[in-house]
Amino acid sequence: MTNWLVEVRIQFKPSVFDPQGHAVENAVHSLGYRSAEGFRVGKYMTFHIAAASKEEAEQVAHEVCDKVLCNPVMETYDFDLKPEASKEGLA
Amino acid sequence: MTNWLVEVRIQFKPSVFDPQGHAVENAVHSLGYRSAEGFRVGKYMTFHIAAASKEEAEQVAHEVCDKVLCNPVMETYDFDLKPEASKEGLA
Repeated sequence: MTNWLVEVRIQFKPSVFDPQGHAVENAVHSLGYRSAEGFRVGKYMTFHIAAASKEEAEQVAHEVCDKVLCNPVMETYDFDLKPEASKEGLA
Repeated sequence: MTNWLVEVRIQFKPSVFDPQGHAVENAVHSLGYRSAEGFRVGKYMTFHIAAASKEEAEQVAHEVCDKVLCNPVMETYDFDLKPEASKEGLA
């Protein structure tokens, strides 16, 4: 049983208007940073999965993203899986 | 002048309680995924910088993160910089 760190990035689809990104861009420009633009604000979530294989961890991560973390109508997601020391190893 | 894509990840410091992550974890567990735990919810922001060098883009990105995107009392950030096609090249 290996522990996996899952790093999920969730973003609005390009066609979805992002008012928070727009507000951030206005704030940045008002401070004089005119070279920065096109701000988009999404979510970054991390969690841990205990699984026997990378395939099993990937499947659980996809199901968690599809069912809870991501709204597929407006958002897309991708994630990285990184092995961690197992719980037994830490005990 | 090169365009750079900046991908910023902002997370609560480990010592800061994350109620949104806690709520997500409860939702995930109630669906039966007991192997997933330790949810933390942060922000993922992307934007573009036009700069003459990677060093200049890095400096602007750090200033934007320090002054607008990140609350240094509760949060930490890191970012990746990726070169894009220049605006002139796209014109």
